[in-house]
Amino acid sequence: MTKDEFYMGKALAEAKTAYAVGEIPIGAVIVYEKKVVARAYNLRESLPCATAHAELLAIEKACRALNRWRLTGCTLYVTVEPCPMCAGAIVNSRLDRVVYGCDDPKAGAVRSLFHLVDNDCLNHRTEVTAGVRAEECAALMKDFFRQRRKK
Amino acid sequence: MTKDEFYMGKALAEAKTAYAVGEIPIGAVIVYEKKVVARAYNLRESLPCATAHAELLAIEKACRALNRWRLTGCTLYVTVEPCPMCAGAIVNSRLDRVVYGCDDPKAGAVRSLFHLVDNDCLNHRTEVTAGVRAEECAALMKDFFRQRRKK
Repeated sequence: MTKDEFYMGKALAEAKTAYAVGEIPIGAVIVYEKKVVARAYNLRESLPCATAHAELLAIEKACRALNRWRLTGCTLYVTVEPCPMCAGAIVNSRLDRVVYGCDDPKAGAVRSLFHLVDNDCLNHRTEVTAGVRAEECAALMKDFFRQRRKK
Repeated sequence: MTKDEFYMGKALAEAKTAYAVGEIPIGAVIVYEKKVVARAYNLRESLPCATAHAELLAIEKACRALNRWRLTGCTLYVTVEPCPMCAGAIVNSRLDRVVYGCDDPKAGAVRSLFHLVDNDCLNHRTEVTAGVRAEECAALMKDFFRQRRKK
């Protein structure tokens, strides 16, 4: 198992917690100097709050943990491709790198619909690795929506 | 004074508070049924937190105030054109309308660099009014950066 696959497993564990509480199963962790400094899962319905995506909550927790708004030196692992809001937050927080699982053709803003995290127009570019444990990340989403349609 | 100019005055008051505490002077309010249900100003340095832009904080407060993540029926007033993160949050929260003051040629994601809030690719489109009390909003920003360069 590669380092990226290992940390994606931590993000997948967060996504499974989201699933268990009835939230769209997306999870995220932020790693700094080989340590997980923040972990979060989607809480949009539970709070309820439109901005409570896993990535955004993880970025906020990492800022608190490191006591700075620049997350230089950090990598964000997230199970699904970030939306425009979260892609913008990744740039705003100056993250070094984002690693995600499966693509989101409906709202993905890393490479599906927009290219926001490594865009020459903006003042920071974050390195991207896509497709890490993508099948497991996608299977969790498919299963969640299949169950929801049954109800 | 139009209704939009009136509420932009409230957002400008928030921006002035940001200025007073040493933050980039951007303010926002959210209006629902003619009432201000949320007000916020940029707190990035104070918290410190990369996501603590005026618009994002106002959206979070409005979700709490109305106890729902869909801000249907609400209008966001913000002194400066939203960045990609905040433009994404506007779409995610299903805001009816966004009214802003001055353009941001370096990070604006409503019409300057990207068109994210009324984009046909996404599942919600928010109506845009730009340029309301733009000179006052821009003057506050210019004055802030002029003062900062002096130091």
